[in-house]
Formats: sequence, C-alpha cells, structure tokens
Amino acid sequence: METTILDLTQKDALENSTCLSATDATTAILSREMKPSEVMLECIANIERHEQKVGAWAFMDKERAYHKAVELDKKSPGGPLFGIPFGIKDNIDTHDMPTEYGTSIYQANQPSRDASCVGGLRSANAIPLGKTVCTEFAHRAPGKTANPWNINNTPGGSSSGSAAAVASGMVPIAIGTQTTGSVIRPAAYCGVIGYKPTYGDFNLSGVLANTPSFDTLGFFSKKLEDLVLVRRAVLDNSIPSLTIGNLKNIKIGMVAEPYWDSTCGSNIDMISQVESLLSKAGARVQKFDGGGAFNDLEQLGTNVSGYEFARTLSHERRYFYDKLSPILRDGRMADGIKIDYSQYVLSIRALEKSRLILDESMCEVDFVICPSAPNVASPGLHETGSASFNMAWTWLHTPVITLPIALDNKTGLPLGLQIVGKRHQDDKLLSHAGSVYQNLFR
Amino acid sequence: METTILDLTQKDALENSTCLSATDATTAILSREMKPSEVMLECIANIERHEQKVGAWAFMDKERAYHKAVELDKKSPGGPLFGIPFGIKDNIDTHDMPTEYGTSIYQANQPSRDASCVGGLRSANAIPLGKTVCTEFAHRAPGKTANPWNINNTPGGSSSGSAAAVASGMVPIAIGTQTTGSVIRPAAYCGVIGYKPTYGDFNLSGVLANTPSFDTLGFFSKKLEDLVLVRRAVLDNSIPSLTIGNLKNIKIGMVAEPYWDSTCGSNIDMISQVESLLSKAGARVQKFDGGGAFNDLEQLGTNVSGYEFARTLSHERRYFYDKLSPILRDGRMADGIKIDYSQYVLSIRALEKSRLILDESMCEVDFVICPSAPNVASPGLHETGSASFNMAWTWLHTPVITLPIALDNKTGLPLGLQIVGKRHQDDKLLSHAGSVYQNLFR
Repeated sequence: METTILDLTQKDALENSTCLSATDATTAILSREMKPSEVMLECIANIERHEQKVGAWAFMDKERAYHKAVELDKKSPGGPLFGIPFGIKDNIDTHDMPTEYGTSIYQANQPSRDASCVGGLRSANAIPLGKTVCTEFAHRAPGKTANPWNINNTPGGSSSGSAAAVASGMVPIAIGTQTTGSVIRPAAYCGVIGYKPTYGDFNLSGVLANTPSFDTLGFFSKKLEDLVLVRRAVLDNSIPSLTIGNLKNIKIGMVAEPYWDSTCGSNIDMISQVESLLSKAGARVQKFDGGGAFNDLEQLGTNVSGYEFARTLSHERRYFYDKLSPILRDGRMADGIKIDYSQYVLSIRALEKSRLILDESMCEVDFVICPSAPNVASPGLHETGSASFNMAWTWLHTPVITLPIALDNKTGLPLGLQIVGKRHQDDKLLSHAGSVYQNLFR
Repeated sequence: METTILDLTQKDALENSTCLSATDATTAILSREMKPSEVMLECIANIERHEQKVGAWAFMDKERAYHKAVELDKKSPGGPLFGIPFGIKDNIDTHDMPTEYGTSIYQANQPSRDASCVGGLRSANAIPLGKTVCTEFAHRAPGKTANPWNINNTPGGSSSGSAAAVASGMVPIAIGTQTTGSVIRPAAYCGVIGYKPTYGDFNLSGVLANTPSFDTLGFFSKKLEDLVLVRRAVLDNSIPSLTIGNLKNIKIGMVAEPYWDSTCGSNIDMISQVESLLSKAGARVQKFDGGGAFNDLEQLGTNVSGYEFARTLSHERRYFYDKLSPILRDGRMADGIKIDYSQYVLSIRALEKSRLILDESMCEVDFVICPSAPNVASPGLHETGSASFNMAWTWLHTPVITLPIALDNKTGLPLGLQIVGKRHQDDKLLSHAGSVYQNLFR
C-alpha cells in the first residue's frame, strides 16, 4: 500500500498546533466555554511557534486582532463567524492593511476599501489577522512560504500562505483565489480542506484580477461545516446546514482521462481505496469522461488565460516591466500578448459550449471524484507544482472541494480527494462531501 | 414630422466647439497638418468655454496633459491613438489622478495602478485629460453634469461626464461603463456615438464593480472609425478597419415589444423614417421579438443586479451607510439585500438560457435596431432617465452601438438609434453600423 487513508482534519501539520476549526470555536464561544480573545490567543501562539519556519504571512497585526477579540468578549455573540480569526490572501484589498499582490512593485500599497468578501466576513464578526503570502500577481513566482508538513517542500500556489496558515493552526479559515488550481492544489499539498465555488458565486470586487473569465474566490478550512459559515458570511444570506446522509444509490463519477493519466502511484492507490470504501457504503461508482467537455481544454484555457492576464496587467507592463519575474513576463504574459483576438474569441465561445456539455454530462452522476493534484507537494520552494488536475473545473466553472483524506506512505505528505459538483449547486456539493467523509471514516 | 433625421456627428452640441474626432485628429497628426499639442489645445479651449456650464469633469489636469502632448510633438507617431486626448469615467482607477467613484466617501482617493483600459490607451499614446463625472457608485444619484444640448436637462447616467465631455468637444473620446444603460442612454441624450461591447470583451481590472454579471466597459466617440482605434488600443491587438458596404439583402430586425412599447412619438417617427430609408437601400427590415429571450427579463435582471450590487458594496454598507444616497441605500441596495440566494441562482441560470435563446433568435437577422432610450433627455438634473431600452442588451451580453441620427423637432434634443449585434461579433457590428450611417445620409 502506498497510501494510508486518514482523516487529516483531525490533525495539524505541525506539532503543538491546537487551533480549533471555525465551527468548533463558534460552538465554544456560543456555549461560553471560550472567549473570542482565547481563540485569538491560540492562533497567535501558533503563529509565534511556526511563522518563522512556515512564512505564511505577508502582513500581520496581532495586536489589533487581539484588541478586536477582546472587544467581542464583551458583546453577546452574533453573526455566523463571531470572533473567528481569518487570513486574507494578499491579492485581496483591505482598507486597514497593506495589499502587495505578491510583488515588490506594490510594497506598502494601501487600498482604500475592503474587498466584498472581507467586508462580508467582518460583518459576520470574523476578525482579520493579516494578509497571507501570495505568489507574484497570483501567477507562478513563489513567495517565502514553506509547506508545514515539510518545510523543504512547496506549499503550492498561488494561495500559498492561506493554505499554510490553516494547516499550521495559525487561523481556522483563510481566503484564497483560484484561476487554474490556486486553492485546491495548495489545500491538498498542505492537508487542509479547500473550496472553490461555482464561478461568480462569491463577489470579486476588490480582488486583483488575473484572468477575469476564470478568477474565483475560494476558502481554506479545517472542517466542512466551516464552509457553510463562510458561505453565510460572504453571501450575506441564509445558507442551509449540511445534510449528511448515506451514499445508497448515489452515483459517483470517477475521472480517469485525459488530464488525470499523469497521476502518481499513491493517488491511484488512494482512489482505488476510496472507490472500494464508497462502493461498500452503497454508492454506484462509475467512469466519468465529461462527454467531450475536456476536448482541447488545455489549449483553449491557455489561450484565454494568457490573453486576459497580459491585458489585466497593462499598467505593470507599461511602468514596471523590469520588475516582473521572468516566469511571468516571458511566460504567460509574453504568450498572452501573442494571442490573436479572433483566436481568443473562438476559445471563449468553445469554452462556453464545453460548460454546457459538462453540465449535461454531469446529469448522469451526483458528483465526480478525482485526485486534487498529480502528486504530493514536490521538494524545493522554487516552484508551486502543477495545476493540471484543477484547470478543467476552474475553467468550466464547476464548484470543487478538496478533502485531506490520505497520507503518502513514502513521503508522509498529504493527498487530497477532489470532489466536483454541478454548477450553482454548491450547497449540495458540500453535503455530498460531508457524506463522503462520513462514509470514509465511519 | 416630429423628428428630423440628421447626421449629428458632424455637429457639436455647443457652439464654438471644434474638437476633431479621434480619427480626424490622428489623420491630421500623421500628415503633419497638426501637432498633438494643437489637438490638445482645441480640447482645452472647449473645456474653458463650456465646463462651467456643463460640469463634465470630476478632476482635470490640463497642464500635465498639455506637457505630455508637447512631448509627443517631438516624437514620431506610433500607436493607434497617438496624441489623442481622452476622458476617463471616475469609477475607473488611475495611478496619477484621484478616483472618487461619484461619492464624497472617496474624496481625493488615489489608486495605485491604472485600470487595464487606461493602461491600454496610454500605451496607444492617447493622453488622459482627467476624470469625468460619474453618478454615485455608477448607480442613480446624479453628479453635477448638465446636458450640453440644453443645460437644464439631464445628460443621462451613469457615465454622465463622459457623454457630455465628448458632446461638447472637450475630448474626442471618453471611457464609460454600462451595467444597465449607462453608456448608450447618455450617449443618445447627448447626441454622440456610444458603444457597449460584448460582455467580457474589454478587461475590467481596475474598474469599480457594480453588478459583476452585467458590468461592461464602453466608449463615447464622434465617429464610428474612432471605435476601431479604441478597440485596437484596449484589446492591444490588430482589429480590422470598418468594411462599409451596401445593405442589399441585409436582414435587419426591428424590435417593438415588450420593453419598447413605452417609446415616444418622436422615436416612432425616427424608426419609421429609418425603416423606409434602409428598405430603400435594399435592406430587408423585419419584426424581431427575441424568440422568448425577453421573458421575465426585467425581474430576472433586477434580482441579479440588486443582489450583486448590495454585496459589491459590503465595505460601504459596513462603514459608510449614512453617507450613501437614499436612492442607492433604500433602493437597489435594500432590495438586493432581501434577494434570497436561491432566487439569485435561479435568475442567473435563467439569464444564461435567455442568452442562448437570443443568440439563436439573432441568427435570423444580421443585426437589430431599436431606439436608444424611451425619450429625449428629460428636464431637470435630479434624475438620469430610464434604462429600460438598454437592459436587455446589457443583461444578455450583446454588443450595442447608439448612433446620433436625429433631432426631436419639439425640444431640439437628439435621438439615438440603437444597433444591436451578435455576441462576440463586435467588429461586424461596427461595420454594419457604418453601412447604416452611409445609407441614412448618402
């Protein structure tokens, strides 16, 4: 066996990390077992223990966060995330903390307003602890963050700091963004839950664009239930609690090709164990090929992301060309400038059709599973790994969750199981993910 | 006859305004007839003549713009908009000019980077003259701008200043945004060309969101050819020149219902004269009903815009609630907060279907025509008029142009003809608009 199936949500990557999940912290606060300031002190303690090695933060204001928590100690609880500390990826604007977009070009840059999601979380009484490290403009050039499971390995990107902060118990939840695989991949590498909603579901006002046709806000958490609280806060709406049931007659699609054929042995082992466990629980696991939705996908998506990214950064291209990393400037930006408008439009139209094909194809199943990344986090901090297992779902706008359900026996690093839902059925996806969890670890 | 068909592009709203179109100015500069600084001085002269009455600008830096033009005098021409002055709606970020979003909340707010479109225009060697007046957060509460055709009347909104600045010869082109009717309506009211591209065509990075599912960048100009130059600059790509031909066997759809039945007599007269002129030119003008794409449209779009707008402004709702205008706070924002998530999702899905129905329905014609607004600009500066003739095309993502082709005989105010193209066929739409122009005024 190359892989051990294991509930990693009950474990922190780093020893001595005892940060509660948002759900458990909320329960403790509501029942007066804990005060918001005590929850905050736990997070601060983990930051003090681990930040020097992990490097999850671009900016932190522990003092202000603690004072805010003490203020809440005196208030009667209200809002879905009362007193819950959170991290904010540093491509997301905050009116009271700098936002540097992962580049020295914007050192100490101070936005004038909070991004929509930050406003939503604050109004839910969550408390921002700081800004988490983001790769340069949420592209590939990595920041300083290391993987809490092994600080010689990448945490993944581009939401590197958010994944590492949650994995090392520094905050129970953190915000990220995904344009290809920037939430799901780092979440899998760092052994935490990652969630990328249906495209458009979470408002992106105040988030620096990368590829507007694909950009999606996402979250990292310790428990699935946390994502319900997050959705209540961001959507500012009543969102149902999870409905966790058995898997009898639930139809689960298992993706094999064409992008998933590069997966490693431990992933294959994980998926095969998962298939057997879910089948035993009564689910009908069947092959899923997307009905043609994945045809030419890599080329189409690359055309769109290159084209849009180069134009998103027209200001930086004009004024700070020499301050861009070679991988950004000579990679996606250079490629994107070359894309012809007519080619771009054809790609946009083709992807629109692929989305409808995938919608249709997903009618045959309740949800789809596949590995969250081709492999565990690779050694070295010079690159953030491959997003090839994530691009289909991001570019075709379906909601996705990665669950940290296994350890690779050779490296001791976590593996994620990716669960893909139907567009605009995020709440159902969360419940299905809950059912999968329960049946894997009953 | 209530309406006189007239080529208003050859006329400025205000006397003594002689600002050239971008196309003509470019030609004059390339042939050394004029220098960029002379073009700029013309614009500055018109600003000095009319700004006090028209109030098109939220911020202006004539001196810097003039110096930039003098710099270009010494250079050999390059870029699609070499030396062309332009205005920027004040919900669009500029790194060297304040951006106040039409509200005192953001007085003297200074963004750190240019919006993608501003970067594109600068790199095309166009010169920004300043920021044009925008209604509060691009919603309804008007700024100080008056209609250059009659300063007692509204210029329309939300891109009020951009429309008025082009109409009074202060700049040949100006950028606007449209979430319902914020480019086409003010362009029609002010007697200039307005263009709203296919949704997504122009990158919105650095533009303050209103309703992300509908927000579209647009332009105001004096000539259709100017829009080709603008597209070359913003898209940073080779875009074909107009192909203007005859209208023989061109199929033109004429919209009558359900949203266009509130039109005034002068509009009906205009459309009937246009129909007769285009038919004489060989076009086949036929009724167009959208094949069901307009069913429930107003309710669906209102759900989406209310829901998204309230969340876009979560920061302002939290920190500046008392500084929001009653029409914003107690109108769209209050309505939007009440929208249930499930209702929002149903509306999003229904609109997605309506777009496909409209695509299908538009296969029967080459393009569609209808009035650009229910009436001419109304008296008073307290409101900006109705967007009811624009919402379908914005919410269903089709490209639209308004041509200033007629004067209402009673008020002497301009009327616009709205020409609707097929999604992602903007260049074809521009050419069709050119053919319509030529055949109306041959």
